[in-house]
Amino acid sequence: MKTVSTNNSHGGVQGVYSHASATCNCEMTFSVFVPPQAESNPCPVLYYLSGLTCTHANVMEKGEYRAVAAKRGIIVVCPDTSPRGDDVVNEDAYFFGSGAGFYVDATEEPFAKHYNMYSYVTQELPTLIGDNFNADMDRQSIFGHSMGGHGALTIALKNPDQYKSVSAFAPICAPSGTEWGSNAFSKYLGDESTWRAYDSVSLIEDGNRLGDILVDQGTGDEFLESGLRPQLLEAACAEANIPLTLRMQDGYDHSYYFISSFMADHIAWHAERL
Amino acid sequence: MKTVSTNNSHGGVQGVYSHASATCNCEMTFSVFVPPQAESNPCPVLYYLSGLTCTHANVMEKGEYRAVAAKRGIIVVCPDTSPRGDDVVNEDAYFFGSGAGFYVDATEEPFAKHYNMYSYVTQELPTLIGDNFNADMDRQSIFGHSMGGHGALTIALKNPDQYKSVSAFAPICAPSGTEWGSNAFSKYLGDESTWRAYDSVSLIEDGNRLGDILVDQGTGDEFLESGLRPQLLEAACAEANIPLTLRMQDGYDHSYYFISSFMADHIAWHAERL
Repeated sequence: MKTVSTNNSHGGVQGVYSHASATCNCEMTFSVFVPPQAESNPCPVLYYLSGLTCTHANVMEKGEYRAVAAKRGIIVVCPDTSPRGDDVVNEDAYFFGSGAGFYVDATEEPFAKHYNMYSYVTQELPTLIGDNFNADMDRQSIFGHSMGGHGALTIALKNPDQYKSVSAFAPICAPSGTEWGSNAFSKYLGDESTWRAYDSVSLIEDGNRLGDILVDQGTGDEFLESGLRPQLLEAACAEANIPLTLRMQDGYDHSYYFISSFMADHIAWHAERL
Repeated sequence: MKTVSTNNSHGGVQGVYSHASATCNCEMTFSVFVPPQAESNPCPVLYYLSGLTCTHANVMEKGEYRAVAAKRGIIVVCPDTSPRGDDVVNEDAYFFGSGAGFYVDATEEPFAKHYNMYSYVTQELPTLIGDNFNADMDRQSIFGHSMGGHGALTIALKNPDQYKSVSAFAPICAPSGTEWGSNAFSKYLGDESTWRAYDSVSLIEDGNRLGDILVDQGTGDEFLESGLRPQLLEAACAEANIPLTLRMQDGYDHSYYFISSFMADHIAWHAERL
């Protein structure tokens, strides 16, 4: 693991690191905020998964998570959203390829060699965090935004024992039925029958369960009806008796101005469960 | 005044606006955060002046001021750091020209037509804010970072009746004796005798006074000795009996990771005085 940069911030250290990923077969970059409490005690780990077009840097710069994470003693880990590099097959679209890994393990060529963000986030990255930081790996939680909200929800639903809690900002709740999701899943995963394993609503319909979920969604979000569709998650959770706190935030859009506004609430949600 | 963008954030609205500036003779862009309290009552105004290379956008994205400003009911106005545009004479240097207005009124050609950030910040911009927002213009304060800390201190020292309070992150305390300052001042202002009117330490030596000052400075700041020199401000304030709270922050650098760490303290400092 290489240190790209470290900056003192809010009493802790905001770092950026890179490593040769065996899962994604390329150099991967991620950020870690280490709160001051980690100097003396192992701290719980909260993963933030970012949305389409983002890297680790967007939330690191605009997410406003450090003040509360420092107060509550939480390590915040922000991975990239896809494999990258000259060897990685890409397409010239904001919703596919670089910046759009969709947190799946691709099975189709030419994507299967690199596009394995599901295993990267759930296995390789946690091992790296446990080995290199003063982290209590028995206390991990996950959240994210948009495509990263989809990632957080599907990962938590598939690994309820690994994550103590999950939340999301404006998640893609049922990607299979959207242009974004059907385009990505058909290329990464192939046959439509395999998509259900990476679709939160389908996973709940198929019997996956977890404790409870917090979702914030702006009513002024331009992707609300075309891509996000929280009403489908609401219906699935109601049917499955999964407690969902869905907060429709008046006039908020899809940007980091929205995310940062409710970041403290989400960190508090996880802190209470970690 | 044209609206470039608005985003709901932290219960208020983060806006970006532009207008044809009569002072700078070009189109100028600035950001305004309006807290929720302004829906019912006029709110005080806090100006944030940015550092070299910055526009209005850096602090808007990375400054983490909205949570506290929304709580305390303060309008936060962030102007650009210089005139811009095809007509504006520029130099290919990060420390002069575009992004480096140094908050002076230039007297030398070819800069005098556009580089009038002092009058822009103290006169034209406040009039625009008073005319277009629910602002209590009897309650104004000012702060800034680096070159913008220099701007905030000099502007407050020269206009003690206009601003209720002043603070700075890593300000350029005595620009005349630095490479940055002597390069800029010689080109914008000409003869060295005129520089004292835009140098905080000189202004204090020459009898300018104000209530009190808060300064945060990172000990790991790469520009500490070459450009910032808080010890000179400390000595001048001691000599002049100006109460200065100078906080040397262990290991912090010159970045927004430093600024955002202490932003809440600075907003609170101003809120108590506004």
